[in-house]
Amino acid sequence: MARLEALAGITETPGSLTRRFLTPAHASAMEQVAAWMREAGMSVRIDAMANVIGRLEGETPGAPAILIGSHIDTVIDAGKYDGNLGVIAGIEAADALAAEGARLRHAVEVVAFGDEEGVRFPSHLLSSRSLTGTVRGKELEACDADGVSVKAALAALGHAADGLKQCARKEREIAAYLEVHIEQGPVLQAKGQPLAAVTAINGAARMRVRVTGMAGHAGTVPMALRQDALAAAAQMVLEIERIGRKGGNRLVATVGRLEVRPSAPNVVPGEVLFTVDVRSPVDAVRRGAQERIAGALEKVAAERCVTLTAETYYEMAATAMDRRIVATVLEAIGAVGAEPLSLASGAGHDAMAIAQRWPAAMMFVRCKDGISHNPAESITREDADIAVRALIEAVRRLDRSL
Amino acid sequence: MARLEALAGITETPGSLTRRFLTPAHASAMEQVAAWMREAGMSVRIDAMANVIGRLEGETPGAPAILIGSHIDTVIDAGKYDGNLGVIAGIEAADALAAEGARLRHAVEVVAFGDEEGVRFPSHLLSSRSLTGTVRGKELEACDADGVSVKAALAALGHAADGLKQCARKEREIAAYLEVHIEQGPVLQAKGQPLAAVTAINGAARMRVRVTGMAGHAGTVPMALRQDALAAAAQMVLEIERIGRKGGNRLVATVGRLEVRPSAPNVVPGEVLFTVDVRSPVDAVRRGAQERIAGALEKVAAERCVTLTAETYYEMAATAMDRRIVATVLEAIGAVGAEPLSLASGAGHDAMAIAQRWPAAMMFVRCKDGISHNPAESITREDADIAVRALIEAVRRLDRSL
Repeated sequence: MARLEALAGITETPGSLTRRFLTPAHASAMEQVAAWMREAGMSVRIDAMANVIGRLEGETPGAPAILIGSHIDTVIDAGKYDGNLGVIAGIEAADALAAEGARLRHAVEVVAFGDEEGVRFPSHLLSSRSLTGTVRGKELEACDADGVSVKAALAALGHAADGLKQCARKEREIAAYLEVHIEQGPVLQAKGQPLAAVTAINGAARMRVRVTGMAGHAGTVPMALRQDALAAAAQMVLEIERIGRKGGNRLVATVGRLEVRPSAPNVVPGEVLFTVDVRSPVDAVRRGAQERIAGALEKVAAERCVTLTAETYYEMAATAMDRRIVATVLEAIGAVGAEPLSLASGAGHDAMAIAQRWPAAMMFVRCKDGISHNPAESITREDADIAVRALIEAVRRLDRSL
Repeated sequence: MARLEALAGITETPGSLTRRFLTPAHASAMEQVAAWMREAGMSVRIDAMANVIGRLEGETPGAPAILIGSHIDTVIDAGKYDGNLGVIAGIEAADALAAEGARLRHAVEVVAFGDEEGVRFPSHLLSSRSLTGTVRGKELEACDADGVSVKAALAALGHAADGLKQCARKEREIAAYLEVHIEQGPVLQAKGQPLAAVTAINGAARMRVRVTGMAGHAGTVPMALRQDALAAAAQMVLEIERIGRKGGNRLVATVGRLEVRPSAPNVVPGEVLFTVDVRSPVDAVRRGAQERIAGALEKVAAERCVTLTAETYYEMAATAMDRRIVATVLEAIGAVGAEPLSLASGAGHDAMAIAQRWPAAMMFVRCKDGISHNPAESITREDADIAVRALIEAVRRLDRSL
């Protein structure tokens, strides 16, 4: 917890935590993390994508590694735990394993990624994707709001972009990937449990919907002659919620943004624009919900004689976690005395990129009121402790079984 | 129709119609209206509030007048008919009556008011209220956006504000008031009829509502654990619509403005602000609806565990039109061969002010698609013609019965 506090002090914006990819604050945090890795007995290197990688050798030097990772970049005005907890938990686990002196069959590596939040550059997951060798050179040309490219920002920190290829890890170098992360949701708090194994990272789709009715004078157009775009949209919002609720814990559906035009107290709304966000760990469930939502919206539009346009502008498949690694994480959670719960992740994580190449799983840690991306982010010392113990337990079990 | 076109050419903004109170465009329109009044055989005076008043004497000079009025100020980017139609209809009616040569028992006066839309100054209905003597001197100190007071604007047109008292008319000077106006709603078009008598000008109330739930990550907060402020507001919007519909043609209820916070596609809405506008020609009906709406909102908020604040920030009683004058207008509509329909007015009019002192009624004229306050405002030549004929008929009947 002290290290998380210390790390939170390394920021672009004194008084609050903002640490974007490849900023001087990120570079300082990288140095701090490297120092803690060394203290834990790891050898440390920083690769060409600014990933900080600590390695604890096993019985046989050069053996495949059990990789523990998360990210140290943050959103603007962030909390202390999103990403950072996973890196510190990895270092603490390695430290404990090193202190025991008992060598494992596998090496243990801890990696601190830098581009998970995607706040500075239009790119996403450059750090974890560099390990899988899927970053294209062109992505490094993308610029931040000040016109600085990823390439230039890397160069400013002393990293040559032509080292990109050397970031890619050979498949046999990594045996499994584990990531500890705050839940960013309220389920564990509601269940009174500290930990859960993540079974999948949700797939997601986003729609833009436009409802066009007829604007009119709020005093002079009788109720029976209205084509009220907002009343129609309100009915649609409730249909979307109803369909989302029917999916139990395998589906969420959200109208997050909604804009009324012209939006005056004395004008019957003529047009409403809104977004729909649908997520599920099971792509078929998500696609089924998208179809039911599209059907429900059309039905409401027809009943109310309003015009509807709906466009899906973003769609991403779910990422399943590896069944064996998930099972091991569940055993580890049980072994430290917590209830072995499973959850799907509603948010994206570095594990999404790593799972494209290596068996991966995540462990969620309870956070207060499900709040994240906010200075109010909070976890307890007890939960951090049991998370690190479960992580150590998972590494031990994977070391024996893989 | 030619005069309405000509009048629409007198504007502050060439290419569109904007004619605010006491602007040079208003002054030019006053001169044009005065000229047409004189052509119709009326004596014309302009009072200290820039009202243009034409008078056609009856059998006995100085007899009480049947007053026909409306306004020649407009909103910004206005249509050609709102207000202007009523003034031109009055002049046409006076012209026809003068041409017949048959003197009436009453005088006929036509008045062109200038402050109905309330666009330039914070004041409202200064012109028609000046006739009833209810304008307070302090109201003339109010300034437009450029810091020009009503008093200064009147002075610039050569009117001394100390003439305000002379604008007030003695009760016995006016026998009745008639106002012709476009409906500004779609009811006459839907009924296939050109005219209606107005029975009352709706009372209105406006509420501001704030719904506070809990913002959350659209991917990580399960449906069952949400306090979605937008879903709650959507249910409230539909309840308000349902209550409005139950009032038949005596009630309208509108959510015209609605704002979602934080309004991002991936965030469950934490707060929604919206307005409710409730109008009825019967104050008891409106108040009953307000109470039912308040109850429904509280019920939804309780069911959904969201916090509700609702505040009524504007409330104005209905203005009943005079039963005898309304009956005469209905007879006149029937006499020119149209169906004698009655309507309540959802918008405010000069008749609201005049009705405080004298028996008043209005006649609505069908307008295309109910559109007003918009360049697309449109009426037919046939409807304008039947409106003038019905107005003449109403004046004749009032002259006999009053």
